[in-house]
Amino acid sequence: MRYSQYFVPTVKETPSDAEVISHQLMLRAGMIRKLAAGIYNYLPLGLRSIRKVEAIVREEMNRAGAIEILMPSVQPAELWQESKRWEKYGKELLRFKDRKDAEFCLGPTHEEVVTDIVRREVKSYRQMPLNLYQIQNKFRDEIRPRFGLMRGREFIMKDAYSFDVDSSAADSSYEKMYQAYRRIFKRCGLNFRAVEADTGSIGGAFSHEFMVLADSGEDAIVSCSDCEYAANVEKAEARPVALEHAEPRPLERVETPHKRSVEEVTAFLGIPASSLIKTLLVVADGEPLAVLVRGDHELNEIKLAKIIGTETLEMASEEIVEKVTGAPVGFAGPVGLKVRIVADLATQGMKNFVTGANGRDLHYKNVNFDRDFTPSLFADVRNVVHGDPCPRCSAGHLELWRGIEVGHVFKLGTNYSEKLHATYLDADGKEQSIFMGCYGIGIGRTVAACIEQNHDADGIVFPIPIAPFHCIVSAVNSKDASVMAAAEGLYQTLTAAGVEVLFDDRDERPGSKFKDADLIGIPLRLVVGSKNLANGKVELKIRKGGEVTLLSLDEAVENVKTLVANALNQ
Amino acid sequence: MRYSQYFVPTVKETPSDAEVISHQLMLRAGMIRKLAAGIYNYLPLGLRSIRKVEAIVREEMNRAGAIEILMPSVQPAELWQESKRWEKYGKELLRFKDRKDAEFCLGPTHEEVVTDIVRREVKSYRQMPLNLYQIQNKFRDEIRPRFGLMRGREFIMKDAYSFDVDSSAADSSYEKMYQAYRRIFKRCGLNFRAVEADTGSIGGAFSHEFMVLADSGEDAIVSCSDCEYAANVEKAEARPVALEHAEPRPLERVETPHKRSVEEVTAFLGIPASSLIKTLLVVADGEPLAVLVRGDHELNEIKLAKIIGTETLEMASEEIVEKVTGAPVGFAGPVGLKVRIVADLATQGMKNFVTGANGRDLHYKNVNFDRDFTPSLFADVRNVVHGDPCPRCSAGHLELWRGIEVGHVFKLGTNYSEKLHATYLDADGKEQSIFMGCYGIGIGRTVAACIEQNHDADGIVFPIPIAPFHCIVSAVNSKDASVMAAAEGLYQTLTAAGVEVLFDDRDERPGSKFKDADLIGIPLRLVVGSKNLANGKVELKIRKGGEVTLLSLDEAVENVKTLVANALNQ
Repeated sequence: MRYSQYFVPTVKETPSDAEVISHQLMLRAGMIRKLAAGIYNYLPLGLRSIRKVEAIVREEMNRAGAIEILMPSVQPAELWQESKRWEKYGKELLRFKDRKDAEFCLGPTHEEVVTDIVRREVKSYRQMPLNLYQIQNKFRDEIRPRFGLMRGREFIMKDAYSFDVDSSAADSSYEKMYQAYRRIFKRCGLNFRAVEADTGSIGGAFSHEFMVLADSGEDAIVSCSDCEYAANVEKAEARPVALEHAEPRPLERVETPHKRSVEEVTAFLGIPASSLIKTLLVVADGEPLAVLVRGDHELNEIKLAKIIGTETLEMASEEIVEKVTGAPVGFAGPVGLKVRIVADLATQGMKNFVTGANGRDLHYKNVNFDRDFTPSLFADVRNVVHGDPCPRCSAGHLELWRGIEVGHVFKLGTNYSEKLHATYLDADGKEQSIFMGCYGIGIGRTVAACIEQNHDADGIVFPIPIAPFHCIVSAVNSKDASVMAAAEGLYQTLTAAGVEVLFDDRDERPGSKFKDADLIGIPLRLVVGSKNLANGKVELKIRKGGEVTLLSLDEAVENVKTLVANALNQ
Repeated sequence: MRYSQYFVPTVKETPSDAEVISHQLMLRAGMIRKLAAGIYNYLPLGLRSIRKVEAIVREEMNRAGAIEILMPSVQPAELWQESKRWEKYGKELLRFKDRKDAEFCLGPTHEEVVTDIVRREVKSYRQMPLNLYQIQNKFRDEIRPRFGLMRGREFIMKDAYSFDVDSSAADSSYEKMYQAYRRIFKRCGLNFRAVEADTGSIGGAFSHEFMVLADSGEDAIVSCSDCEYAANVEKAEARPVALEHAEPRPLERVETPHKRSVEEVTAFLGIPASSLIKTLLVVADGEPLAVLVRGDHELNEIKLAKIIGTETLEMASEEIVEKVTGAPVGFAGPVGLKVRIVADLATQGMKNFVTGANGRDLHYKNVNFDRDFTPSLFADVRNVVHGDPCPRCSAGHLELWRGIEVGHVFKLGTNYSEKLHATYLDADGKEQSIFMGCYGIGIGRTVAACIEQNHDADGIVFPIPIAPFHCIVSAVNSKDASVMAAAEGLYQTLTAAGVEVLFDDRDERPGSKFKDADLIGIPLRLVVGSKNLANGKVELKIRKGGEVTLLSLDEAVENVKTLVANALNQ
């Protein structure tokens, strides 16, 4: 592609309304343009990267035996009423009426539609396993669309749905998708982790998230230093801590004037945070509840909600705290408390710890379980922290990362098939519910996450597999006929060899050409300048790291071909 | 692809709600399934054909220098208000509000959005010509969606938009698209005509439609037997007819009791229809008007409206006819009429013709222009008919066809750019409006039109370039290990050679396999049966025409490869 005949509207200034780096760089590199909040035009460079991701996804889905179809954006309300999601989904589901007053929505996901196809066509166990996927435009009316393609309203997604005869067959479909996803993100050139995840409101049996590691990631994830264990912090299991062997000392009430926070109290008493237990008051389905967590740990509300089986969970208001404890916020403690108490596993082995004493400016020292109070339940309700022992292997410890979710695989079970009556006849002629799984990849988000992970002060640093072009040929002086001829030759030769080349044939200053090339992040750059060319040489610059080598034209062609081939065959 | 692991839900019965053959066959062949009125799921075979058309379109658009982008489905009302189409577009434009009560629509077309991109990024004449295209999902809330993919509500379209500095540069962009469209439909293997078309409500300077010829086509089109001329009947020009050389005879009023229609009057008087002139009364922008057309011709209201420059045009009611002529319907004539008279060009040379006499049961014989009345205007206001002389060349005559519109190219001029203020600075630094063109192809409709043109009693007869697979390998007896091994070998060898093979490895009766193969219309079929295989032979059957040849396995592979290569390189 000749740059002079292409459409790459780069921008020097950082756009003021873009908060994250991928959003800033995609705007500056002329990859996307905003049409409305959370709704973007994909300009040529952006679309090319998206198509690269799509192609990798398609190849790996086909390799795993999934079959491509394409479902509509506009979906009739009836199907969503059958699955009970028409009411449940909330305002993210954009609903409207057509000219005949029939109700429709813009599809945020396609469980209903695909299950409708399958219930009409699949009658026998012989027709499964079946895995149908599509790469399609979704719409979710996010309340706060932001971060460019990272959290848009209209976005491109690959969604796959598996249909199996039973739970173990569904597990095998899930495993195929899990492995396909690993190959997809590896082939995209991304540093990622597959982590165990909470199944959330979709209510499946189990799930994994695929996270691209990046400091700007919205999600906290952990992985073991030694084994394969990795999980979202929402879900990561904490191992019980060993029992302290100490004699119980007598309970002692101490004055702690104006000391409320863990930091204030432990500093005042001269003890480590790990010797204090925080008493947190929450309201679960309308009932107040106390939760005990070690001073240096944090409550994980998702774990807590799941363990106590509550639908709603929120931190108690100041009024409720005062009512339940008889003291202002900051002095709650378990001793004498009249509400149900859930204690984190990490507190179970503790002796002679500090807690609040349910009175203004008062704490207890030397509190002990059973002697002073007894929790209703010990359970894992905290976030793991860096250095925690791995819950799976004996050797490793957990490392914390920030990640961006780009893929998600769910085992759904029979949730949708039961509601929509998607059944089949088994080998004995008995009617059974179909077991489902669903598997999503955010295509545009994968490109954005790639940029969050791969950029520097000058711009994007695309990995070769999803870069819009593999190589840019920059003719330094477009007025020098020999430079233009050599550059044109490189462009033609490399293109014929299957390398995707952007030929910067513009009549621009070299500095401006180099700035654009860095900004749009093309992995390999061949610089053709008068001086080097007089010696039969051109410069090859690797965008990542900036390594520069002087090569003959033939060597340059061979090097670029080899670098591209190696990157694509990983 | 192995048939046993694929998803091709074929149906024996003709679906009762499908009126046209392409709709019936796409449902029966398991290519599409209806989700709601005018909204379809594309199942694997249907999607494959659609992707084939998309790929050909993309290659030819790129070859013509157009640049691919992707714009959203959901578009903000503001842009449509700027172009004045928010009010004008009618109910086909599906409007809705998002959760914040902002108004949006589902894009039925993208002139507004693409013009918005261009007005923000294109500032100088140096940035043009520019042609941006996308392959994208459109939504038009048709009042009567029907015929499957032929007139759906949600559908896939390729839309391109060209931007040029002036009218003559816009012509050259138009010409490039026109030639690209010819290549596209030729490469799809379709019999088509590019016809001059009326520009309609989009209000462009000129336009061509690309019509796939099929008896079931909604459009009537003509083409010259000798030269390149072709046009939609709406627009096709009629050549003036030669002057009759006859002496005027005296005007004569004759009784024609109960004879009103052309057939009745000419039979009664013993004259050919071409010796009579029909007087049709219409109401144009509220004013009655008489139009004269030869007895064997038909009025073309689109031509008439354009010539007299009217916004609304309708046939006059009985009351108006009686008021204007003083006689019941069936006896109107131009002599003595007090309204404006437009006469068709084909009447201009006529002498001594018959017309109504504006009295019950009365006609005139030997009417002559100027002596008896004088029309305000002679103009081409009729439909051309089969055998009319070609308006362009001297030798040919016009042939009539039925066609299905699959593509449309428009020269738009500055209509949108003026309303949306899309301007550029010319070489002298003066601000100028951008000249636009727009160019559409219905992707799904192209597949449907292909089926309307290519089918027989057994099913679809796909041309190789857009068939879902090139070749089907049918193992006649799947229990015979040598048959399965030979079939598997053919499948592997052909696939490795780049032939797209559907391998019918199902445990089904041969008759059922052949019926499915015919129905889904795979162009080439290799039949592997025990008997022929014992002699080292397999059968090659060409779907179109049904020719069968017995070949060795090697010959079969070579023949299939050659047939596919020849079809794709046309």
